[in-house]
Amino acid sequence: MIDKLIKEIKKKEAPIVVGLDPKLSYVPKHIRLDAYAAFGETLEGAAAAIWRFNKEIIDAVEDLIPAVKPQIAMYEMLGLPGLEVFDRTCTYAQSKGLVVIGDIKRGDIGSTSEAYAIGHLGEKSVGDGYVAPFHEDFVTVNPYLGSDGVKPFIKVAKKHRKGIFVLVKTSNPSSGEFQDQIVEGGSPLYELVADKVAEWGQDHMGDDYSYVGAVVGATYPEMGAALRKRMPKNYILVPGYGAQGGQGKDLKPFFNEDGLGAIVNSSRGIICAYQNDPYCGKYGAVSFSDAARAAVIDMIEDLKQVR
Amino acid sequence: MIDKLIKEIKKKEAPIVVGLDPKLSYVPKHIRLDAYAAFGETLEGAAAAIWRFNKEIIDAVEDLIPAVKPQIAMYEMLGLPGLEVFDRTCTYAQSKGLVVIGDIKRGDIGSTSEAYAIGHLGEKSVGDGYVAPFHEDFVTVNPYLGSDGVKPFIKVAKKHRKGIFVLVKTSNPSSGEFQDQIVEGGSPLYELVADKVAEWGQDHMGDDYSYVGAVVGATYPEMGAALRKRMPKNYILVPGYGAQGGQGKDLKPFFNEDGLGAIVNSSRGIICAYQNDPYCGKYGAVSFSDAARAAVIDMIEDLKQVR
Repeated sequence: MIDKLIKEIKKKEAPIVVGLDPKLSYVPKHIRLDAYAAFGETLEGAAAAIWRFNKEIIDAVEDLIPAVKPQIAMYEMLGLPGLEVFDRTCTYAQSKGLVVIGDIKRGDIGSTSEAYAIGHLGEKSVGDGYVAPFHEDFVTVNPYLGSDGVKPFIKVAKKHRKGIFVLVKTSNPSSGEFQDQIVEGGSPLYELVADKVAEWGQDHMGDDYSYVGAVVGATYPEMGAALRKRMPKNYILVPGYGAQGGQGKDLKPFFNEDGLGAIVNSSRGIICAYQNDPYCGKYGAVSFSDAARAAVIDMIEDLKQVR
Repeated sequence: MIDKLIKEIKKKEAPIVVGLDPKLSYVPKHIRLDAYAAFGETLEGAAAAIWRFNKEIIDAVEDLIPAVKPQIAMYEMLGLPGLEVFDRTCTYAQSKGLVVIGDIKRGDIGSTSEAYAIGHLGEKSVGDGYVAPFHEDFVTVNPYLGSDGVKPFIKVAKKHRKGIFVLVKTSNPSSGEFQDQIVEGGSPLYELVADKVAEWGQDHMGDDYSYVGAVVGATYPEMGAALRKRMPKNYILVPGYGAQGGQGKDLKPFFNEDGLGAIVNSSRGIICAYQNDPYCGKYGAVSFSDAARAAVIDMIEDLKQVR
């Protein structure tokens, strides 16, 4: 799946992924009211509104981008109807040829991580057969529990030709609180995690890059440079572009000299474009998906300077 | 909710929680076959089997225990039908007066952690009203992203009188890989996390203990002793008893002198008791819930020596 992702990035000249992290407040009022009229002011109504929002965004940008990254928390917040829409969104995006990165940040003891891995990347044996529960192409994984919390994801990814991105240095303001702690040997913890990612990745290679990748926030470009060197064969998923503060010109350090090695996520900057400058003057709520498309085009342009 | 948990622990003289982490291989064949006959060899059939298994276990032990801890991964592995059974299990346990600890190990950047917190502990605003998505009483939280990934859980827990347990030192063999790294000041990382838990907990107190607790594995009793002192007012959720190797006599360090301060989880040791010594000789698959009850009684007895 890493090979498909890279092929699509090259074809579309777009090392970007659109984060489908919808909140109800992002959804134009006319869509919300339609959904509430059909399903009531319920979780079902909220999920129906999110589904229509996602579908129109995907339809508007699918020819421009290689991948989407639904953030499962936004769907879990709507309970079972929300998770049904998470699943439907993954299916729909895949039907358009998009790679789906499930931003699930799971991680647990070995047997439990295996259950998550099967649930999101694999197939569950039931009776004499196998069934796919959720079915993302990649998932994000939290490394706090160490190797035996991560390896089951790699094992299942290998079997089903999927991939993972392990959290190394996250984009949020307090990410340094634990991740930047200097450990024995004089490195920060996140570099130790990066070294593990490089090690895990070595044995799990696609054509040019490993299908074990890393998450490194756009908000820490100087760390990105060091981490790029430590993990030469691991793709880096870069959140924090746009709304969280990262900018295209800062992102060069995340890329290798081949122009590959990183994929930059934007969520609010794309899906809420119609609510914010510079798009809100030109696009109203009815044309929210046109605003998303314009924002994707601008993001691709902004990222040309880093390659 | 921490006050209710402690009241129930005292009343039942049982500082224990039963982990509802069912895999299909734990479910007696007659239950699986019934479920497949009704729903096919599908995720729905698997989930139906798990539901009946959980319900019979809860019915068999609910008078003995204060709480259950469903591990959401085991339900996510069965997709949407599995998560429906997760929800139904929480509802059913709560209807029996049990406290429900959702073992979800979520944690993300602030706005995303807030979505998880609302999804599991809070209420979601939809239109003019509020709806509860999932509805555990406590959840477990992964601290790798730092304070701003944890505080939204505390905020929502405070509003809805719920609670959290933050991963400090997990029970798995490789937990030391990152958690035991010695950081500046000479302490291992998990102690730094513990100090944060103590700090967060101070401002969020029930009557005697904070509703911000910690997870510390039974498999590391000497660390448990040190952590007990660092977090005097934080309840410790102790996984790893029984199947993972921890034993009652080793657990004294996790408790305070008041006999409180810790709640010990057993999952496989209870729910699979009928498959293992010393119960398998006496109980067959048909009486699996009687075996679970016998295992709970033995666990309560085993833990009397630590109080």
